[in-house]
Amino acid sequence: MNFRDTMKINDVGHLEIGGRDTVELAKEYGTPLYVMDESYIRRVIRAYKSAIESAYGHGNLAYASKAFSSMAIYSVMKSEGVNIDVVSGGEIYTALKAGFDIKNAYFHGNNKLISEIELAMDNGIGVIVVDNIEDISMIDAIANEKNIVQDVIIRTNPGVEAHTHSYIQTAKVDSKFGFSISNDDAMTAVKAAIAAKNVRLRGLHCHIGSQIFDKHAFVVAVDVMTDFIVEIKKELNYDIDELNMGGGFGVHYTDEDPRYTIEEYCNYVKIIVNALNDAIETKRIKKPYLMIEPGRSVVAEAGITLYTVGTIKDIRGIRKYINIDGGMGDNIRPALYEAKYEAINSTRANENPVEKVSIAGKCCESGDVIIKDVLMPKTVRGDIIAVFTTGAYGYSMASNYNRNPIPAVVLVNDGKSDIIVKRESYDDIIRNDVIPSRLK
Amino acid sequence: MNFRDTMKINDVGHLEIGGRDTVELAKEYGTPLYVMDESYIRRVIRAYKSAIESAYGHGNLAYASKAFSSMAIYSVMKSEGVNIDVVSGGEIYTALKAGFDIKNAYFHGNNKLISEIELAMDNGIGVIVVDNIEDISMIDAIANEKNIVQDVIIRTNPGVEAHTHSYIQTAKVDSKFGFSISNDDAMTAVKAAIAAKNVRLRGLHCHIGSQIFDKHAFVVAVDVMTDFIVEIKKELNYDIDELNMGGGFGVHYTDEDPRYTIEEYCNYVKIIVNALNDAIETKRIKKPYLMIEPGRSVVAEAGITLYTVGTIKDIRGIRKYINIDGGMGDNIRPALYEAKYEAINSTRANENPVEKVSIAGKCCESGDVIIKDVLMPKTVRGDIIAVFTTGAYGYSMASNYNRNPIPAVVLVNDGKSDIIVKRESYDDIIRNDVIPSRLK
Repeated sequence: MNFRDTMKINDVGHLEIGGRDTVELAKEYGTPLYVMDESYIRRVIRAYKSAIESAYGHGNLAYASKAFSSMAIYSVMKSEGVNIDVVSGGEIYTALKAGFDIKNAYFHGNNKLISEIELAMDNGIGVIVVDNIEDISMIDAIANEKNIVQDVIIRTNPGVEAHTHSYIQTAKVDSKFGFSISNDDAMTAVKAAIAAKNVRLRGLHCHIGSQIFDKHAFVVAVDVMTDFIVEIKKELNYDIDELNMGGGFGVHYTDEDPRYTIEEYCNYVKIIVNALNDAIETKRIKKPYLMIEPGRSVVAEAGITLYTVGTIKDIRGIRKYINIDGGMGDNIRPALYEAKYEAINSTRANENPVEKVSIAGKCCESGDVIIKDVLMPKTVRGDIIAVFTTGAYGYSMASNYNRNPIPAVVLVNDGKSDIIVKRESYDDIIRNDVIPSRLK
Repeated sequence: MNFRDTMKINDVGHLEIGGRDTVELAKEYGTPLYVMDESYIRRVIRAYKSAIESAYGHGNLAYASKAFSSMAIYSVMKSEGVNIDVVSGGEIYTALKAGFDIKNAYFHGNNKLISEIELAMDNGIGVIVVDNIEDISMIDAIANEKNIVQDVIIRTNPGVEAHTHSYIQTAKVDSKFGFSISNDDAMTAVKAAIAAKNVRLRGLHCHIGSQIFDKHAFVVAVDVMTDFIVEIKKELNYDIDELNMGGGFGVHYTDEDPRYTIEEYCNYVKIIVNALNDAIETKRIKKPYLMIEPGRSVVAEAGITLYTVGTIKDIRGIRKYINIDGGMGDNIRPALYEAKYEAINSTRANENPVEKVSIAGKCCESGDVIIKDVLMPKTVRGDIIAVFTTGAYGYSMASNYNRNPIPAVVLVNDGKSDIIVKRESYDDIIRNDVIPSRLK
């Protein structure tokens, strides 16, 4: 097991994270339990920030908070002096309640509601990311009502579609997000934004995919984006002040994925910066402020989920199921994307793996299997299982399917642990239920 | 458009359900909005019950509430005098709070927690469905502590795997649920249940799949189950009092699926009863109490979801996206199972379809497209879109992904409408968030 930095097997043979024994955490807070390592999150953020600073000197990052959104995480981002990327009124509201100043926020979304735009503007949103042509007139009209000029950037599709280990370039982009550069849609949007009275066009945005390991895709994307910047300058004599290259940096889920140290994650930044510096020189464009929007790579490997083993079912010659007290309600990714995970028996972290098992969730659905075929030591009821790399899109996609309560989230750091999201109670689950009087 | 019974286009050209204009409902309660037709639910339940009564005279149904669980629905089931199937402490708690007597409930699950079994027994659960061998000793021990004898049925795998339009018979069953009949696991469980002092074995259970249209699969399953009843009688001289044939009856999502009237749904019951009557006669077994567990077929077609159209994005020559104010947060099934749905522009229900569009959700995720390629009249911002057959596994799987609030649920009936689940507020979303003092 190649543990991520603050993880280790401790003296009593249990998995430890952030200086806390996970078996003790399970005892103290109950299971299922999301555990997030604050130190890892801060170090990734700082590494990205300092890589941009040292290699480029004119930029920042915006944490893509849909990966993991809660008041505490916005509080961490605030203290680190970075921006955030928000995608809904709910994320904006959460950030505001955490005291985060949303002048440092980018508001994304293919269908921003008028009420969401109003909430954003009323609280001084920094940048709204224009995603379609109607966004411009809508933002302009609301900004006009409020007598402000709203900074925007335009989300474009550079025609680079990056996948895990490869990318393709395509002229025709079928996506609900953004404007294609190849078919003039992006230029039309740029013109409309420049023309809109209560809108200031600050820059351009692109996001080329998720879970990307093939870094050359970013080089190609920078090339297309800077060509477009040149075109805008030539055609409209307008300087693009900011270039937002999005996120999508790949993280380690299983040994099928590369495993980067925090320093190695910064190679994504360096490759983008190198390509950008080249383009600035060869294409003679004004040096844009550079933004990146990492989400998954900030929180995924910071998080583990702890479960308690319940019933065990051994179908001789076929499969042994280790049933845990969580499942697709707290981690839908295996069912939704066939995502793969690794796990350890934390109670017996020092024992040799002796059997191949499947880790099954407790939802009444055949597809609720978190891991198919993982090697484990002899595992019994009551053991604590830790599933790795669950910090992104675990809690944020959690549901009450089967009316199971959503687990608590604990933040660990250097031997300390604090609840940052309380465990749901059954009363929480029924809090909005109503029986109309005519049914009584 | 072949509307399901209480649906029609009304005088002002809007879709109506349960005597309520859906555009008016959207105005009154906001969108996204789940709308459930009480009358449809009650009539399906009554039809199943009366089909069992008239054709067999010795049985009932248990509504599989994971399809849609809320206090109001348990209240409806209570008033109809039917049983329920529950799969967690959360569902049991909700039923209890609705005043449902859980002596009429079946408690399922591959990993029932001790706390859940205790909650169930303390409130007099009728039947616990044994899913694995550890369940028996666990139920026996807890029942012993509480000085009760707990009725159980044993979930078996008859080796019939039914799919939408076909089924296969298999000897080796790889499932986290139940005991295979073919490899003696089921017989071992039967013996263990009979031997356990504080357990009374009432019967057998099987569930052969979901969304089944090929009814012959149930005939084969009845044959295997009754063979097993014969075997138990022969080997152990024990009478099986109850046979629970599970659910899985297919519903109409799109025109690719058959569309049954309520009366036609009862054909599932009739086919099971015919096969069972044959077996009783030819195999000379004691007539078992017959249970079925329909979930989806009770609520799916009773429900629609209403959305408001926001931004529209036309990528010339490629695709037109109609963006709605909900999406995968309130209906994960398109992303999770590639499930297909049909929809109508309720505001323009009388207008001819003139364009092929895709209905995209507002989540920041490319996969959040509810329907690819549906014909619509010329649709504009503010129009109300109704997506059909969303009553099952829509609300029950809903999440706060992107921190979007979970929509309200309205129950309509004969011109009346009542909120049965209140819309979440942003404050609901952050209610369990905590910022530890050391972060402040």
